[in-house]
Parts: sequence; structure tokens; C-alpha cells
Amino acid sequence: MRRVSRGWYVALEGAEGCGKSTQAAALASTLDAVLTRETGGTDIGRRIREILHDVASTALVARAEALLTAADRAQHLAEVVEPALTAGRHVVSDRSVYSALAYQGYGRELDVGEVTRINDWAIDARWPDLVVLLVADPATRAARLDGRDLDRFEREDGAFHRRVADGFAVMAAAEPQRWVVIDGNADVDDVAEAVRAAVRTRLGI
Amino acid sequence: MRRVSRGWYVALEGAEGCGKSTQAAALASTLDAVLTRETGGTDIGRRIREILHDVASTALVARAEALLTAADRAQHLAEVVEPALTAGRHVVSDRSVYSALAYQGYGRELDVGEVTRINDWAIDARWPDLVVLLVADPATRAARLDGRDLDRFEREDGAFHRRVADGFAVMAAAEPQRWVVIDGNADVDDVAEAVRAAVRTRLGI
Repeated sequence: MRRVSRGWYVALEGAEGCGKSTQAAALASTLDAVLTRETGGTDIGRRIREILHDVASTALVARAEALLTAADRAQHLAEVVEPALTAGRHVVSDRSVYSALAYQGYGRELDVGEVTRINDWAIDARWPDLVVLLVADPATRAARLDGRDLDRFEREDGAFHRRVADGFAVMAAAEPQRWVVIDGNADVDDVAEAVRAAVRTRLGI
Repeated sequence: MRRVSRGWYVALEGAEGCGKSTQAAALASTLDAVLTRETGGTDIGRRIREILHDVASTALVARAEALLTAADRAQHLAEVVEPALTAGRHVVSDRSVYSALAYQGYGRELDVGEVTRINDWAIDARWPDLVVLLVADPATRAARLDGRDLDRFEREDGAFHRRVADGFAVMAAAEPQRWVVIDGNADVDDVAEAVRAAVRTRLGI
């Protein structure tokens, strides 16, 4: 029996309106990869995501929010990501465990070390091989969100979103071998080409 | 302004069908305490509990289950337990964080130390002051469950429920100053009186 070589796990990360979802879909199509998402990449995860994004969840405290997102990631890793990688498929995910660190750690100002530890356990230490961080100006992002029915996270104030963006920047700078930062302000096709080139350079695929 | 003395936090624990819910209600009434429950003691918690107990959640993996229960506990501690204790009310809870250790740690055979650490963070290290463990024979428990529409946990096999029961026994033996073990086979009023006497002896209330 031929031994199938393990696929690569690529995550798209960034702030609301940075173009992640569009670029994740484009990259998955190019690589013939499994396209998935966190939170909400499984049936269980969609139920968790409903609680997290519901604007009626005003009582939700930060630690419960962090643990709900970690539960989604545990389910997603076990049910979707790991089986695909083992079967030799590449996986492209619209957000990943790093969003938990950015949003619940930096954004909610929880202890980032503790949030990291909990998520490391949730995903059994299987972190993405490559993280593409899309960075777009506030004006670009605001234009992309314009007209959307904003959810619980999108409605957070500017200070929260600055902490999230700063968190992504800090993590990208701390692990440059795992992260690549791409300017997300350009035309969608130009961004897609930049993402594609980065993935080719880093992973050889 | 008079300083309100902090209330006591009492948890009832035990296997399915041990009589916990009945005894928790009786004790709360006697103590004029806030009666609550885990999981499902808050609106957020009820949505989490629906996922956990749904017999259709067959795909739910152990780590995600553990993190969902921890999320419920974080929300419950912050929204219900801690405010009541701070206001000087006693709290009687039908299950507590110790059920997470028994069911997800011992029952699911996850690393109990890791599950403990995650839950300690979830509840900000605020563990129950007293845990009443009700122990009933399998025949007694089976009779009490008879006719119930069994949920995801109640449907687990005998080996799972033995691991849970053993987990409770191990935890009770390890912290005898915090736990009291009560024979739950007797008549409901006799059990209630034994619970009441134990609480009076231990907490002076």
C-alpha cells in the first residue's frame, strides 16, 4: 500500500473585512484543497458559532467565550482538519486557532499564555503549517463591512479591533517562519496572486 | 454600610439517578439558598447543554465536550454563583465543576490534570466550599432512571459510568475536608436529613 504524504494546513487570518473568506476560497480552489472555517466548520461548531455570534448573547463572559471557541477548534481539528491532512489533502481554513489568541486573548484581554495553552490542548498541538495574515486599512475594511448585518464581534468598538489587529501583528512577528503578511488593500485578484505566490514559496505547492 | 458576609457554595454530586436534583432542591429550600445547576444554569448554559445532551451529537469529540462543559461553568460562575455569594446568599448547585472532572476527565479518559487546570481557569479558582456526594446502588439508580427519556450521557455504557463513579470516589477521598459522602439508597426524606446534618456540621448553617 502506498503511503500517502500528509497534506499542508494553511490558515487565512485577519481582522473583520480584510478579505479572508474570499481569499481562502480562491486559494482552496487553486490548491484543490479542503476549504473549511473556524468557527463553524462542523455541525457541532455551527451550533457553537450561533451562540458566539448572536447579538443577543450579551451576558456571555470572556472566559466562556474563549472556551466555546476552543471547543469549536477541538471538534474541527478532530472531525475535519486532521482526517483530511492524514488522507493527503491540503486544508485551507478561513480562520484558525490563532483567531482564538487574537480575539479572546488580545481582544478580550485574557491571559494570552493561558488561552494559548487551552487551545494547544484543544487541537492536540496541531497548529497550522502556514498562516497568511491579510492586513487591510480601516477604510478598506469598513467599506467591505458596509451593508452587512453585523454580528457580536463586528459590533465591538474600535479599541477591541485594534487589540485584535495588534495581537495578529505580534504573533506574526514572533513566528516569521510560520506567518506571512500580505497587503489586503489591493484588488482581489492581485491579493489572490500574492497569497498564491507566498504559499508556493513557503510550502512548495 | 454593613459588610455582607459571603455565602457558602454547596454542590451536590453523583452518578445519574443518585437523587441529586431532588436533594439539591430540598437543601436549597431548607437553607433559603439560590438553587442552580450545571450544566444549564444560565441562558448561555442552556444552549451549551442542548449540544452536550443531544443524542444527535454523535460526532462530538471528548476534548470539545470537555471545553463546552468548561464554558458552561465559566458562564455560570460569573453570572450566577459569584454574584449570589458576594451578596451573602448561599448557593446550592445540582452538579458543579467536579462533574467535569468525573465525566470528561475520568469518564472520557482525558488527562485529569489538564481538565482540572482548564476548569480551574474557567471558574477563576472558585471551587465549591462543600461537595455532597450521593452514592446509590446501580439497582436504585436504574429504577430512578426507568421511564426517563435517556440523554447522551445516560445512554453511555456501564464501563463509562463506573469510571465516573470511581472518579467521584477518588476525588472525595483526596479532599475529605471538602467532600462528604452520603448513602443515597434510603428514603428521600432520610437522605435529605442526612444531607442537612452534614451541611450543618461542616459549615455551621
